[in-house]
Amino acid sequence: MTTAAAVDFWFTMGSTYTCLTAMRLADIEHTNGITFRWHPFDFRKLLQEMNYFPFPAESPKTAYMWRDIERRAAMYGIPVRLPAPYPIADSFHANCVALLGLREGWGKAFIPVAYRRWFQFGEENGGEPNLRAALAEIGQDYDRVVETARSVPVRRELEMQTDEARRLRLFGSPIFIVDGEIFWGDDRLEDAISWARHGRVLRQAG
Amino acid sequence: MTTAAAVDFWFTMGSTYTCLTAMRLADIEHTNGITFRWHPFDFRKLLQEMNYFPFPAESPKTAYMWRDIERRAAMYGIPVRLPAPYPIADSFHANCVALLGLREGWGKAFIPVAYRRWFQFGEENGGEPNLRAALAEIGQDYDRVVETARSVPVRRELEMQTDEARRLRLFGSPIFIVDGEIFWGDDRLEDAISWARHGRVLRQAG
Repeated sequence: MTTAAAVDFWFTMGSTYTCLTAMRLADIEHTNGITFRWHPFDFRKLLQEMNYFPFPAESPKTAYMWRDIERRAAMYGIPVRLPAPYPIADSFHANCVALLGLREGWGKAFIPVAYRRWFQFGEENGGEPNLRAALAEIGQDYDRVVETARSVPVRRELEMQTDEARRLRLFGSPIFIVDGEIFWGDDRLEDAISWARHGRVLRQAG
Repeated sequence: MTTAAAVDFWFTMGSTYTCLTAMRLADIEHTNGITFRWHPFDFRKLLQEMNYFPFPAESPKTAYMWRDIERRAAMYGIPVRLPAPYPIADSFHANCVALLGLREGWGKAFIPVAYRRWFQFGEENGGEPNLRAALAEIGQDYDRVVETARSVPVRRELEMQTDEARRLRLFGSPIFIVDGEIFWGDDRLEDAISWARHGRVLRQAG
């Protein structure tokens, strides 16, 4: 068995399609033996700099996005109740909490739980109901986490991650980078895995 | 064996990702026994109405688009030499020729040949070198085809197709519609096939 390359997983907690990745990545890491390095970043800031918002309210593309996610969630066996609230009010804070969790070791447990609350129960990422319930579920103290996530060092680290994302010219979420190859979208996760294992995209990642 | 629903395939000859569909759809129709109804439309007009251009020159997303197509073309075994000229100068005419060909019965043979010339030899769809070579290859007379494609009835039919695409609120190419479900992108072709056969998206279309 050859050693697979590590995959950098860049994302924002404000992204809808990232739900599909967040809900299945732990299983994929376990099954494939591939290391994913999780990097939340403030994608909204980069979108503002590009003067672009990918999913305007009421647009056909946005209606399609929800239906596409619904069908693919069913394919993956992920229960959802859509559309969920969007865009979320405070993706910066949501990303700071995710970043703090990743640094403290509970991020990979927290992120799918938070997404489940957003996409099944309508509690958006970064909002108080979502954070209270999701943090309780994984045994973290809400007051401590929120206070720490709002502190200058965590905010500054998220800004540094965002600077790195800008330097990499990232334009979406989720994005996977392996051996310098960029793969955009939950629907390219299998391509990224294939690249990590074989150095090219095969029809079946495996 | 149950009867699969027919799939409406909406596209513009100016679309890059549509190359991947055009190059493999004949095989897919043959293998799966699914009827695809091919509908060229003037997507550029709808984009102008939306005041949106999906792939600006020099943008990271556009660079990514070429690389993504290159990797997926390799996955499908389609030879390409990228980037190809883009955007093309006269997608309206390219679509009129495609429409004429579909009405006269040579469209499904012509379209992949035209795309091959664009993506392998750099002769863009709708341009004279592309049309001369592609039409010769399938045994159609260049002068007759171009004159007919520029005639009022063909132009008007393309405009009517475009009106129908607007009514359907189409926002991309390729788009597949089956049982009222919209699937956007070459990477959703398997989802559309799955829907046609099973009424839902399964992991393996088949």
